[in-house]
Amino acid sequence: MNFCSNCGATVVLRIPTGDTLPRHVCDACGTIHYSNPKMVVGAIPEWEDKILLCRRAIEPRHGKWTLPAGFMENHETTAEAAARETAEEACARIAVGDMYSLINVSHISQVHILYRARLLDLDFRPGEESLETRLFTEAEIPWDELAFRSVALTLRLYYEDRRAGSFRFHVADIAAPATAA
Amino acid sequence: MNFCSNCGATVVLRIPTGDTLPRHVCDACGTIHYSNPKMVVGAIPEWEDKILLCRRAIEPRHGKWTLPAGFMENHETTAEAAARETAEEACARIAVGDMYSLINVSHISQVHILYRARLLDLDFRPGEESLETRLFTEAEIPWDELAFRSVALTLRLYYEDRRAGSFRFHVADIAAPATAA
Repeated sequence: MNFCSNCGATVVLRIPTGDTLPRHVCDACGTIHYSNPKMVVGAIPEWEDKILLCRRAIEPRHGKWTLPAGFMENHETTAEAAARETAEEACARIAVGDMYSLINVSHISQVHILYRARLLDLDFRPGEESLETRLFTEAEIPWDELAFRSVALTLRLYYEDRRAGSFRFHVADIAAPATAA
Repeated sequence: MNFCSNCGATVVLRIPTGDTLPRHVCDACGTIHYSNPKMVVGAIPEWEDKILLCRRAIEPRHGKWTLPAGFMENHETTAEAAARETAEEACARIAVGDMYSLINVSHISQVHILYRARLLDLDFRPGEESLETRLFTEAEIPWDELAFRSVALTLRLYYEDRRAGSFRFHVADIAAPATAA
Protein backbone atom coordinates (compact mmCIF):
# COMPACT_ATOMS: atom_id res chain seq x y z
CA MET A 1 0.00 0.00 0.00
CA ASN A 2 1.47 3.33 -1.17
CA PHE A 3 -1.51 5.68 -1.44
CA CYS A 4 -4.61 6.38 0.63
CA SER A 5 -7.62 4.69 -1.01
CA ASN A 6 -9.86 7.40 0.46
CA CYS A 7 -8.08 10.65 -0.54
CA GLY A 8 -5.14 9.61 -2.76
CA ALA A 9 -2.36 11.08 -0.56
CA THR A 10 0.79 9.12 0.26
CA VAL A 11 0.45 6.84 3.31
CA VAL A 12 3.06 6.14 5.97
CA LEU A 13 3.57 2.96 8.00
CA ARG A 14 3.52 3.66 11.75
CA ILE A 15 1.87 2.60 15.00
CA PRO A 16 -1.20 4.82 15.55
CA THR A 17 -1.79 6.31 19.03
CA GLY A 18 -3.39 3.68 21.29
CA ASP A 19 -2.56 0.85 18.89
CA THR A 20 0.16 -1.80 19.14
CA LEU A 21 0.92 -2.67 15.51
CA PRO A 22 2.15 -0.63 12.50
CA ARG A 23 -0.65 0.39 10.10
CA HIS A 24 -0.77 2.32 6.85
CA VAL A 25 -1.86 5.77 8.04
CA CYS A 26 -2.94 8.77 5.93
CA ASP A 27 -1.92 12.06 7.55
CA ALA A 28 -3.91 14.03 4.96
CA CYS A 29 -7.39 12.66 5.76
CA GLY A 30 -6.68 10.72 8.97
CA THR A 31 -7.74 7.29 7.68
CA ILE A 32 -6.06 4.26 9.26
CA HIS A 33 -5.93 1.36 6.79
CA TYR A 34 -6.18 -2.05 8.46
CA SER A 35 -5.24 -5.33 6.83
CA ASN A 36 -6.78 -8.52 8.24
CA PRO A 37 -6.69 -12.27 7.58
CA LYS A 38 -8.81 -13.71 4.78
CA MET A 39 -11.06 -16.74 4.91
CA VAL A 40 -10.87 -19.49 2.29
CA VAL A 41 -14.02 -21.63 2.43
CA GLY A 42 -14.94 -24.83 0.61
CA ALA A 43 -16.53 -28.26 0.70
CA ILE A 44 -15.84 -31.99 0.79
CA PRO A 45 -18.56 -33.06 -1.69
CA GLU A 46 -19.49 -36.71 -1.02
CA TRP A 47 -21.13 -39.21 -3.41
CA GLU A 48 -21.44 -42.73 -1.97
CA ASP A 49 -17.87 -43.66 -0.91
CA LYS A 50 -16.27 -41.05 -3.17
CA ILE A 51 -15.44 -37.35 -2.92
CA LEU A 52 -15.18 -34.73 -5.64
CA LEU A 53 -11.81 -33.06 -6.36
CA CYS A 54 -10.92 -30.36 -8.90
CA ARG A 55 -7.66 -30.03 -10.82
CA ARG A 56 -6.59 -26.40 -10.78
CA ALA A 57 -6.47 -24.37 -14.01
CA ILE A 58 -4.99 -21.35 -12.20
CA GLU A 59 -1.99 -20.42 -10.09
CA PRO A 60 -0.93 -21.13 -7.44
CA ARG A 61 -0.57 -24.90 -7.89
CA HIS A 62 -1.74 -25.08 -11.52
CA GLY A 63 -2.44 -28.72 -12.40
CA LYS A 64 -2.70 -29.92 -8.79
CA TRP A 65 -5.85 -31.41 -7.19
CA THR A 66 -7.91 -29.66 -4.52
CA LEU A 67 -11.28 -29.57 -2.81
CA PRO A 68 -13.55 -26.85 -4.26
CA ALA A 69 -12.77 -23.76 -2.14
CA GLY A 70 -11.96 -20.08 -2.48
CA PHE A 71 -12.00 -16.66 -0.87
CA MET A 72 -15.18 -15.90 1.04
CA GLU A 73 -17.02 -12.84 -0.34
CA ASN A 74 -18.62 -9.98 1.58
CA HIS A 75 -22.30 -10.43 2.51
CA GLU A 76 -22.34 -14.23 2.43
CA THR A 77 -22.20 -16.88 5.15
CA THR A 78 -19.50 -19.55 5.37
CA ALA A 79 -22.01 -22.21 4.19
CA GLU A 80 -23.06 -20.01 1.26
CA ALA A 81 -19.39 -19.54 0.35
CA ALA A 82 -18.83 -23.32 0.34
CA ALA A 83 -21.82 -23.88 -1.98
CA ARG A 84 -20.84 -20.99 -4.29
CA GLU A 85 -17.24 -22.14 -4.65
CA THR A 86 -18.37 -25.71 -5.42
CA ALA A 87 -20.73 -24.34 -8.09
CA GLU A 88 -18.00 -22.13 -9.58
CA GLU A 89 -15.13 -24.63 -9.61
CA ALA A 90 -17.02 -27.87 -10.33
CA CYS A 91 -20.43 -26.67 -11.62
CA ALA A 92 -21.82 -28.94 -8.89
CA ARG A 93 -24.82 -28.65 -6.58
CA ILE A 94 -24.37 -29.68 -2.95
CA ALA A 95 -26.31 -29.86 0.29
CA VAL A 96 -23.90 -28.26 2.75
CA GLY A 97 -23.56 -30.28 5.97
CA ASP A 98 -21.53 -29.74 9.15
CA MET A 99 -18.46 -27.55 9.32
CA TYR A 100 -15.62 -30.08 9.33
CA SER A 101 -12.27 -28.30 9.65
CA LEU A 102 -10.93 -24.85 10.46
CA ILE A 103 -7.23 -24.54 9.71
CA ASN A 104 -5.07 -21.55 10.58
CA VAL A 105 -2.44 -20.80 7.94
CA SER A 106 -1.09 -17.82 9.84
CA HIS A 107 2.14 -17.30 7.86
CA ILE A 108 -0.02 -16.23 4.91
CA SER A 109 -2.78 -14.68 7.10
CA GLN A 110 -5.47 -17.10 6.00
CA VAL A 111 -8.06 -19.26 7.77
CA HIS A 112 -9.29 -22.25 5.74
CA ILE A 113 -12.74 -23.70 6.50
CA LEU A 114 -14.06 -26.91 4.91
CA TYR A 115 -17.60 -28.26 5.20
CA ARG A 116 -18.85 -31.80 4.72
CA ALA A 117 -21.36 -31.76 1.86
CA ARG A 118 -23.56 -34.13 -0.12
CA LEU A 119 -23.36 -33.97 -3.92
CA LEU A 120 -26.96 -33.74 -5.18
CA ASP A 121 -26.36 -35.26 -8.63
CA LEU A 122 -23.56 -36.34 -10.96
CA ASP A 123 -23.98 -33.43 -13.36
CA PHE A 124 -20.64 -31.76 -12.55
CA ARG A 125 -17.93 -30.52 -14.90
CA PRO A 126 -14.88 -28.21 -14.68
CA GLY A 127 -15.64 -24.54 -14.05
CA GLU A 128 -13.41 -21.79 -15.46
CA GLU A 129 -10.78 -22.27 -12.74
CA SER A 130 -10.58 -26.07 -13.10
CA LEU A 131 -8.97 -28.35 -15.72
CA GLU A 132 -10.77 -31.49 -14.57
CA THR A 133 -13.32 -32.61 -11.95
CA ARG A 134 -13.49 -36.22 -10.77
CA LEU A 135 -14.80 -38.48 -8.02
CA PHE A 136 -12.15 -40.33 -5.99
CA THR A 137 -12.36 -43.26 -3.60
CA GLU A 138 -9.93 -43.13 -0.67
CA ALA A 139 -7.56 -45.48 -2.51
CA GLU A 140 -7.55 -43.20 -5.54
CA ILE A 141 -6.79 -39.89 -3.75
CA PRO A 142 -3.70 -38.37 -5.45
CA TRP A 143 -1.91 -37.60 -2.16
CA ASP A 144 1.30 -36.48 -3.87
CA GLU A 145 -0.58 -34.24 -6.28
CA LEU A 146 -2.73 -32.27 -3.79
CA ALA A 147 -2.50 -28.48 -4.15
CA PHE A 148 -2.54 -27.35 -0.50
CA ARG A 149 -1.49 -28.71 2.88
CA SER A 150 -4.84 -27.67 4.42
CA VAL A 151 -6.60 -29.91 1.86
CA ALA A 152 -4.24 -32.83 2.55
CA LEU A 153 -4.70 -32.42 6.32
CA THR A 154 -8.49 -32.19 6.01
CA LEU A 155 -8.66 -35.32 3.86
CA ARG A 156 -6.38 -37.24 6.22
CA LEU A 157 -8.61 -36.31 9.19
CA TYR A 158 -11.71 -37.12 7.13
CA TYR A 159 -10.62 -40.67 6.34
CA GLU A 160 -9.41 -41.24 9.92
CA ASP A 161 -12.82 -40.13 11.22
CA ARG A 162 -14.63 -42.25 8.65
CA ARG A 163 -12.69 -45.34 9.70
CA ALA A 164 -13.42 -44.52 13.35
CA GLY A 165 -17.12 -44.30 12.45
CA SER A 166 -17.67 -40.73 13.66
CA PHE A 167 -16.97 -37.32 12.16
CA ARG A 168 -16.08 -34.44 14.48
CA PHE A 169 -15.04 -30.81 13.95
CA HIS A 170 -11.28 -30.21 13.82
CA VAL A 171 -9.27 -27.04 14.47
CA ALA A 172 -5.61 -27.14 13.44
CA ASP A 173 -2.68 -24.86 12.65
CA ILE A 174 -0.33 -25.22 9.70
CA ALA A 175 3.12 -23.69 10.19
CA ALA A 176 5.28 -22.06 7.54
CA PRO A 177 7.24 -24.61 5.50
CA ALA A 178 10.84 -24.96 6.63
CA THR A 179 13.09 -22.78 4.47
CA ALA A 180 16.06 -24.32 2.71
CA ALA A 181 19.34 -23.80 4.64
CA MET B 1 -12.49 3.32 -2.05
CA ASN B 2 -11.73 6.20 -4.43
CA PHE B 3 -8.04 5.82 -5.29
CA CYS B 4 -5.74 2.91 -6.11
CA SER B 5 -3.64 2.10 -3.02
CA ASN B 6 -0.88 0.86 -5.32
CA CYS B 7 -0.43 3.73 -7.83
CA GLY B 8 -2.75 6.54 -6.61
CA ALA B 9 -4.92 6.73 -9.77
CA THR B 10 -8.72 6.89 -9.57
CA VAL B 11 -10.42 3.47 -9.36
CA VAL B 12 -13.67 2.40 -11.00
CA LEU B 13 -16.21 -0.14 -9.76
CA ARG B 14 -16.88 -2.86 -12.33
CA ILE B 15 -16.97 -6.63 -12.84
CA PRO B 16 -13.49 -7.73 -14.04
CA THR B 17 -13.26 -10.22 -16.94
CA GLY B 18 -13.86 -13.75 -15.68
CA ASP B 19 -15.28 -12.51 -12.38
CA THR B 20 -18.90 -12.36 -11.18
CA LEU B 21 -18.92 -9.45 -8.72
CA PRO B 22 -18.08 -5.73 -9.02
CA ARG B 23 -14.60 -4.85 -7.71
CA HIS B 24 -12.65 -1.63 -7.42
CA VAL B 25 -10.37 -1.80 -10.47
CA CYS B 26 -7.43 0.45 -11.36
CA ASP B 27 -7.10 0.91 -15.12
CA ALA B 28 -3.76 2.74 -14.67
CA CYS B 29 -1.79 -0.12 -13.06
CA GLY B 30 -4.23 -3.03 -13.52
CA THR B 31 -4.68 -3.82 -9.81
CA ILE B 32 -8.00 -5.38 -8.76
CA HIS B 33 -8.83 -4.46 -5.16
CA TYR B 34 -10.77 -7.18 -3.33
CA SER B 35 -12.71 -6.65 -0.12
CA ASN B 36 -13.41 -9.71 2.04
CA PRO B 37 -15.16 -10.54 5.33
CA LYS B 38 -13.32 -9.89 8.59
CA MET B 39 -13.00 -12.23 11.55
CA VAL B 40 -13.75 -11.09 15.09
CA VAL B 41 -12.26 -13.54 17.59
CA GLY B 42 -12.57 -13.75 21.37
CA ALA B 43 -12.98 -15.87 24.48
CA ILE B 44 -15.42 -16.97 27.18
CA PRO B 45 -12.99 -16.76 30.14
CA GLU B 46 -14.21 -19.10 32.91
CA TRP B 47 -13.44 -18.96 36.65
CA GLU B 48 -15.32 -21.53 38.73
CA ASP B 49 -19.01 -20.96 37.86
CA LYS B 50 -18.38 -17.43 36.58
CA ILE B 51 -17.33 -15.85 33.30
CA LEU B 52 -15.49 -12.61 32.63
CA LEU B 53 -17.21 -9.78 30.77
CA CYS B 54 -15.91 -6.33 29.78
CA ARG B 55 -17.89 -3.09 29.64
CA ARG B 56 -16.99 -1.27 26.44
CA ALA B 57 -15.18 2.10 26.58
CA ILE B 58 -15.42 2.52 22.79
CA GLU B 59 -18.02 2.69 20.05
CA PRO B 60 -19.99 0.84 18.86
CA ARG B 61 -22.02 0.01 21.99
CA HIS B 62 -20.11 2.20 24.44
CA GLY B 63 -21.11 1.22 28.00
CA LYS B 64 -22.48 -2.21 27.03
CA TRP B 65 -21.08 -5.56 28.23
CA THR B 66 -19.27 -8.02 25.99
CA LEU B 67 -16.94 -11.01 25.92
CA PRO B 68 -13.33 -9.97 25.24
CA ALA B 69 -13.04 -10.12 21.42
CA GLY B 70 -11.81 -8.10 18.48
CA PHE B 71 -10.53 -8.11 14.91
CA MET B 72 -8.09 -10.90 14.17
CA GLU B 73 -4.68 -9.60 13.04
CA ASN B 74 -2.50 -10.82 10.18
CA HIS B 75 0.03 -13.54 11.07
CA GLU B 76 -1.78 -14.90 14.11
CA THR B 77 -3.96 -17.97 14.68
CA THR B 78 -7.56 -17.80 15.90
CA ALA B 79 -6.48 -19.08 19.35
CA GLU B 80 -3.70 -16.48 19.53
CA ALA B 81 -6.23 -13.77 18.60
CA ALA B 82 -8.55 -14.90 21.43
CA ALA B 83 -5.71 -14.74 23.99
CA ARG B 84 -4.44 -11.38 22.70
CA GLU B 85 -7.87 -9.74 22.77
CA THR B 86 -8.46 -11.02 26.32
CA ALA B 87 -5.11 -9.57 27.38
CA GLU B 88 -5.83 -6.23 25.68
CA GLU B 89 -9.42 -5.72 26.86
CA ALA B 90 -9.26 -7.27 30.33
CA CYS B 91 -5.50 -7.50 31.07
CA ALA B 92 -6.24 -11.16 31.75
CA ARG B 93 -4.29 -14.35 31.11
CA ILE B 94 -6.19 -17.38 29.81
CA ALA B 95 -5.59 -20.95 28.71
CA VAL B 96 -7.48 -21.12 25.43
CA GLY B 97 -9.68 -24.23 25.19
CA ASP B 98 -11.97 -25.54 22.44
CA MET B 99 -13.47 -23.33 19.75
CA TYR B 100 -17.06 -22.89 20.93
CA SER B 101 -19.04 -20.84 18.40
CA LEU B 102 -18.66 -19.54 14.86
CA ILE B 103 -21.35 -17.01 13.98
CA ASN B 104 -21.89 -15.53 10.53
CA VAL B 105 -22.94 -11.87 10.64
CA SER B 106 -23.13 -11.60 6.87
CA HIS B 107 -24.96 -8.27 6.62
CA ILE B 108 -21.82 -6.61 8.02
CA SER B 109 -19.42 -9.12 6.38
CA GLN B 110 -18.07 -10.47 9.66
CA VAL B 111 -17.51 -13.93 11.12
CA HIS B 112 -17.40 -14.06 14.93
CA ILE B 113 -15.48 -16.88 16.64
CA LEU B 114 -15.53 -17.46 20.42
CA TYR B 115 -13.37 -19.94 22.32
CA ARG B 116 -13.95 -21.50 25.72
CA ALA B 117 -11.06 -20.45 27.97
CA ARG B 118 -9.84 -20.87 31.55
CA LEU B 119 -8.88 -17.72 33.43
CA LEU B 120 -5.44 -18.41 34.95
CA ASP B 121 -5.70 -15.95 37.87
CA LEU B 122 -7.89 -13.15 39.19
CA ASP B 123 -5.41 -10.40 38.36
CA PHE B 124 -7.58 -8.76 35.65
CA ARG B 125 -8.53 -5.12 35.16
CA PRO B 126 -9.95 -2.94 32.36
CA GLY B 127 -7.70 -2.44 29.35
CA GLU B 128 -7.78 0.79 27.32
CA GLU B 129 -10.94 -0.24 25.46
CA SER B 130 -12.88 -1.26 28.62
CA LEU B 131 -14.59 0.74 31.37
CA GLU B 132 -14.98 -2.20 33.74
CA THR B 133 -14.18 -5.93 33.91
CA ARG B 134 -16.14 -8.28 36.15
CA LEU B 135 -16.96 -11.94 36.80
CA PHE B 136 -20.63 -12.90 36.40
CA THR B 137 -22.58 -15.97 37.47
CA GLU B 138 -25.33 -17.03 35.06
CA ALA B 139 -27.94 -15.29 37.24
CA GLU B 140 -25.95 -12.05 37.11
CA ILE B 141 -25.46 -11.86 33.30
CA PRO B 142 -26.76 -8.43 32.16
CA TRP B 143 -28.79 -9.88 29.25
CA ASP B 144 -30.39 -6.54 28.39
CA GLU B 145 -27.05 -4.74 28.47
CA LEU B 146 -25.03 -7.01 26.17
CA ALA B 147 -23.25 -5.22 23.32
CA PHE B 148 -23.70 -7.70 20.46
CA ARG B 149 -26.19 -10.35 19.38
CA SER B 150 -23.36 -12.82 18.67
CA VAL B 151 -22.29 -12.50 22.32
CA ALA B 152 -25.87 -12.96 23.59
CA LEU B 153 -26.35 -16.01 21.33
CA THR B 154 -23.03 -17.54 22.37
CA LEU B 155 -23.82 -17.08 26.08
CA ARG B 156 -27.33 -18.54 25.66
CA LEU B 157 -25.88 -21.64 23.93
CA TYR B 158 -23.13 -21.83 26.56
CA TYR B 159 -25.56 -21.99 29.50
CA GLU B 160 -27.84 -24.44 27.64
CA ASP B 161 -24.85 -26.73 27.01
CA ARG B 162 -23.67 -26.36 30.61
CA ARG B 163 -27.09 -27.39 31.90
CA ALA B 164 -27.11 -30.34 29.46
CA GLY B 165 -23.70 -31.34 30.84
CA SER B 166 -21.83 -31.25 27.53
CA PHE B 167 -20.32 -28.46 25.45
CA ARG B 168 -20.28 -28.80 21.68
CA PHE B 169 -19.20 -26.53 18.81
CA HIS B 170 -21.97 -24.34 17.35
CA VAL B 171 -22.24 -22.69 13.92
CA ALA B 172 -25.01 -20.11 13.53
CA ASP B 173 -26.07 -17.20 11.33
CA ILE B 174 -27.35 -13.85 12.56
CA ALA B 175 -29.59 -11.97 10.12
CA ALA B 176 -29.80 -8.21 9.67
CA PRO B 177 -32.08 -6.58 12.25
CA ALA B 178 -35.54 -5.79 10.88
CA THR B 179 -35.68 -2.17 9.71
CA ALA B 180 -38.37 0.15 11.04
CA ALA B 181 -41.34 0.41 8.67
